[in-house]
Amino acid sequence: MSAEAGSGPPDQGPLAIICGAGSLPFAVADAVRAHGREVVMFALRGWADPERVAAYRHYWGALGQFGWVCRQARAEGCRDIVFIGTIARPPLWRLRFDWGTLRILPRVAAAYRGGDNHLLSSVAQAFEQQGFRLVGAHEVAPEILMPAGVVSKRQPNAQERADMAQALRLLEAIGKFDVGQAAVVAGNHVLAIEGVEGTDKMLERVAELRARQIGGTSGVLVKAPKPGQDWRFDLPSIGPLTIEGAARAGLSGVAVLARASIVAEPQRVTALADAHNIFVVGVNVDGTLG
Amino acid sequence: MSAEAGSGPPDQGPLAIICGAGSLPFAVADAVRAHGREVVMFALRGWADPERVAAYRHYWGALGQFGWVCRQARAEGCRDIVFIGTIARPPLWRLRFDWGTLRILPRVAAAYRGGDNHLLSSVAQAFEQQGFRLVGAHEVAPEILMPAGVVSKRQPNAQERADMAQALRLLEAIGKFDVGQAAVVAGNHVLAIEGVEGTDKMLERVAELRARQIGGTSGVLVKAPKPGQDWRFDLPSIGPLTIEGAARAGLSGVAVLARASIVAEPQRVTALADAHNIFVVGVNVDGTLG
Repeated sequence: MSAEAGSGPPDQGPLAIICGAGSLPFAVADAVRAHGREVVMFALRGWADPERVAAYRHYWGALGQFGWVCRQARAEGCRDIVFIGTIARPPLWRLRFDWGTLRILPRVAAAYRGGDNHLLSSVAQAFEQQGFRLVGAHEVAPEILMPAGVVSKRQPNAQERADMAQALRLLEAIGKFDVGQAAVVAGNHVLAIEGVEGTDKMLERVAELRARQIGGTSGVLVKAPKPGQDWRFDLPSIGPLTIEGAARAGLSGVAVLARASIVAEPQRVTALADAHNIFVVGVNVDGTLG
Repeated sequence: MSAEAGSGPPDQGPLAIICGAGSLPFAVADAVRAHGREVVMFALRGWADPERVAAYRHYWGALGQFGWVCRQARAEGCRDIVFIGTIARPPLWRLRFDWGTLRILPRVAAAYRGGDNHLLSSVAQAFEQQGFRLVGAHEVAPEILMPAGVVSKRQPNAQERADMAQALRLLEAIGKFDVGQAAVVAGNHVLAIEGVEGTDKMLERVAELRARQIGGTSGVLVKAPKPGQDWRFDLPSIGPLTIEGAARAGLSGVAVLARASIVAEPQRVTALADAHNIFVVGVNVDGTLG
């Protein structure tokens, strides 16, 4: 047991957070700190938010600097590493490699040709071979997971629940293709399926359709992990921007798979949802909300 | 047998073409005329191209004027009706109904809540109950179907053929959700799945991703009918705009399901594909090109 408050159990050491874009990395960092464990941010240049990173012990680096992360994390006494935040996959030839990466490059290059799951598993293995443990944000900060049930004032009606169920079945069917954690269904009609562009862009697309009076009204955004996906990477997430995007798209609600999706800034999410009269629910795989 | 050249067999009468946007209706009309059968265009205001419609015997009307089409088509001696051209589904309340439509409205309104297959089958039934026969463009003008094999100078390589096969499997998996006749796969990575926005918008999205250097390079656009889809409506189609969109998206080729997809202006499609060094192929369900 540690004698020092705030440093966590001595067998853990500080948590290394490899930090992409968005507010999620900071939500995780704050939750981990609240559990009494220190964090060290490895902020990815061009992705992580510099103003917010400054509030934590941190290093700046570029995507692809595997050797650098291993070296600094080891020097900081970190054993556990979390990947969190948005990073769109750049072309392989634009990554800035260091020597540590170059050693593992053949494996990463092979994995680069394929879906995200494939790539990320390969990166995880490389870290593990260096003695680190790749953990999921949900393991170190379980309170960031969406609970089951409705967290907004508005409740989904029968049609909206049917749309949620249809979207979940659709996401399950496409999951094996390692694409798409999100879809929009309105009145039994699938309007959009997320590809590489991400949820915000997909919602913009639905907003454009609606501006042209196509695609009906109301509807639900549903997000769920791919079946069999490695939960240590890229769990589906929602945040204030998601609610605002859903409102602009004329949707009546947002549903995410309960206990399998991350909510950044839950209080703001709920407040915004109520302000826009949008429901936000954590749905179970079988479509129930309990 | 008819004694008049150009009027077709007397048991057929002229073909009624309900004409949406794009060049496909005119490709079908010209092919039908070349077979010696007259056509009557029912041009949908806001969708059909007025300049091109003018070259055919035609009537202008609005989507939703079911009674009007039945009346005029009967007066013209038409028994067969073809639906062709792009029509995005407007909100039900914006349709301009005539009395003929109002009589069938409860059925159409019920069908409106659901995917396109569902809606269109219901419309087809309504026409059939009025004594018309709804036929597919491929039945009256089989030459507009894409043949199997490569029709461009460029040939797909092994990776591109693997991407085509993956996209076909993906489209098959989502087909039962009555969405998406198109997807883009690049280096085993699914970049985009078509929703209600249509193929051109999906290609714009891929072009935007690539402008941000996301989503790799090359890749293939694949289009195929939904499994079990009614071929009398909305067969997947490509035309010159598709090739230009694919080129802007940095794709290396376009593949459509052979004998199950329509090519508008095949000569321009091939010429543009060669100019952009893009391959265009008709692929069989099993991924072969023969």
